[in-house]
Amino acid sequence: MARILTGIQSSGRQHLGNVLGAIKPAIKLANDDKNDAFLFIADLHSLTSIKDKFLRKENLLSTAAAWLACGLDPEKVVFYAQSDLPQCTELTWYLNCFTPYPMLANAHSFKDKANRLSDINAGLFDYPVLMASDILLYNANLVPVGKDQRQHLEMTRDIAEAFNRHVQKDILVIPEAKIDESVMTIPGTDGQKMSKSYGNVIDVFLPEKDLKKQVMSIVTDSIPLEDSKNPDLCNVVKIFKLIAPADEIAQMEKSYRTGGYGYGHAKAALFRVLLETFRSERLRFEELMQTPDEIYRALNMGAEKARYIADETLMKVKQSLGFR
Amino acid sequence: MARILTGIQSSGRQHLGNVLGAIKPAIKLANDDKNDAFLFIADLHSLTSIKDKFLRKENLLSTAAAWLACGLDPEKVVFYAQSDLPQCTELTWYLNCFTPYPMLANAHSFKDKANRLSDINAGLFDYPVLMASDILLYNANLVPVGKDQRQHLEMTRDIAEAFNRHVQKDILVIPEAKIDESVMTIPGTDGQKMSKSYGNVIDVFLPEKDLKKQVMSIVTDSIPLEDSKNPDLCNVVKIFKLIAPADEIAQMEKSYRTGGYGYGHAKAALFRVLLETFRSERLRFEELMQTPDEIYRALNMGAEKARYIADETLMKVKQSLGFR
Repeated sequence: MARILTGIQSSGRQHLGNVLGAIKPAIKLANDDKNDAFLFIADLHSLTSIKDKFLRKENLLSTAAAWLACGLDPEKVVFYAQSDLPQCTELTWYLNCFTPYPMLANAHSFKDKANRLSDINAGLFDYPVLMASDILLYNANLVPVGKDQRQHLEMTRDIAEAFNRHVQKDILVIPEAKIDESVMTIPGTDGQKMSKSYGNVIDVFLPEKDLKKQVMSIVTDSIPLEDSKNPDLCNVVKIFKLIAPADEIAQMEKSYRTGGYGYGHAKAALFRVLLETFRSERLRFEELMQTPDEIYRALNMGAEKARYIADETLMKVKQSLGFR
Repeated sequence: MARILTGIQSSGRQHLGNVLGAIKPAIKLANDDKNDAFLFIADLHSLTSIKDKFLRKENLLSTAAAWLACGLDPEKVVFYAQSDLPQCTELTWYLNCFTPYPMLANAHSFKDKANRLSDINAGLFDYPVLMASDILLYNANLVPVGKDQRQHLEMTRDIAEAFNRHVQKDILVIPEAKIDESVMTIPGTDGQKMSKSYGNVIDVFLPEKDLKKQVMSIVTDSIPLEDSKNPDLCNVVKIFKLIAPADEIAQMEKSYRTGGYGYGHAKAALFRVLLETFRSERLRFEELMQTPDEIYRALNMGAEKARYIADETLMKVKQSLGFR
């Protein structure tokens, strides 16, 4: 049985891109009986960029609620908030002392962020070691990573290997990257990749009125209603195709080509399909957001299970370095 | 009542330079009823340079034993090992996110170490934040610092101020540096400042035979026994003057000037005075090293007291940032 560990960014609400590209595939992986799944909300990481206290609370709740609403079973998956396991910051210190400074200074993502952001803090710099600690603390075998995280996983392996070599014992499990080549890129309302930072998201957990507004904001061209249109060039169709049943997709494509079918029609159809597809998720999300204690109970249960393994790894690490 | 916090390096056994220059003055300060003293052995810091597990255990025990043997009262002073309070690594992460990267990259001591050492690890780089965390966790008001640590204390103040400004509340106590201008520089066996890294120490806790060897190794010139000598130029006299009674010092200086008194005589006198001066400390040190449980009991007592304050500060910090 392989232990799969996934960190969830909590820098904002989970949008359609997250739901289709990350949440659903991760839950599918977690539900596979061959896997032992650890899923955590990376709220310590979020502190490198988000300093607002209310936003942090809100993000933790809405992120956890989205995952639970999409079918994550907290009895089956070890689901927790990173900050509830301070063992990961303790291990970070030990690993820091086995991490060459130039490796961090030359990391792509740090150089990229240092060029873009105004708040270049030491947390941003040391983040790859925190990530290594999150993975190594739980003896994860497999870590699903996108393209931008590959180098971080390489660093995790390097740090773990340096540590094991030093203590001459296989204390830390060397994780493998699980690179999913088939990851879907979900287009946003402007046709670019859907991303909070581009302001082009569709948030399926919004109240109907707000969701409708987002759908209506999808960028289209100005070909008149009567004319024939190419469905392959339309952002509405692109999103519709990701969730609608096959017959409805065929119908919409046909209407585009025939003419007499406007973008307003297509948007209304997309809105209806979004409501239908995510009916139960939307209901459950609302319920959870109104009973935060239920969310905290789920996270507490996960923290309890995670703590046992974290303490065990940390004890081994400390002993192998001559700490009490 | 001011809270004074002092970190003790544990990169090796405590020598005469440490005893006279650090241990005795710190214990005097701690015993002053106007002060509330926190003294900790910086064993997490030692991991930036020392990777050997047996050496680490040995260093923790011998360092603690030296301080206890010199009169530190663990009932009165909060005396603990840094690694027993993982709260300091947790706070380090939070503070990292309020520490500008360039501040650490431009720190004198990091640049100096990066030039000298081969193992330039991320722990070395992040060390000033760990130090800030050690100080801020316990709401220390005063931190005795040598010249080489002044910049680190400035950083601690900067980080704490940035944090408080951000959360708009005085959560962290801004510490003051206590710069002792009268710090003694203790000469080593070669006349340079006594330092483990120069290999010129006198370790007053060694067995008699080994201590004698160190005293005999003090570098002198080759003026014959019969001739008159200048006591002010002799390394033996320099050390002798730091510990011997005034009349014995006067006697030795007179013998130097008169002649017929050799360096062997002076070394024998120094050796005798060392044994006399540190008789009780040497005995107690030996006793403690033979009963490590007694040392651990003292450190556990300190950790217990420190934990209460550490947990309180950490809770305030987390709450002010919107963590649970």
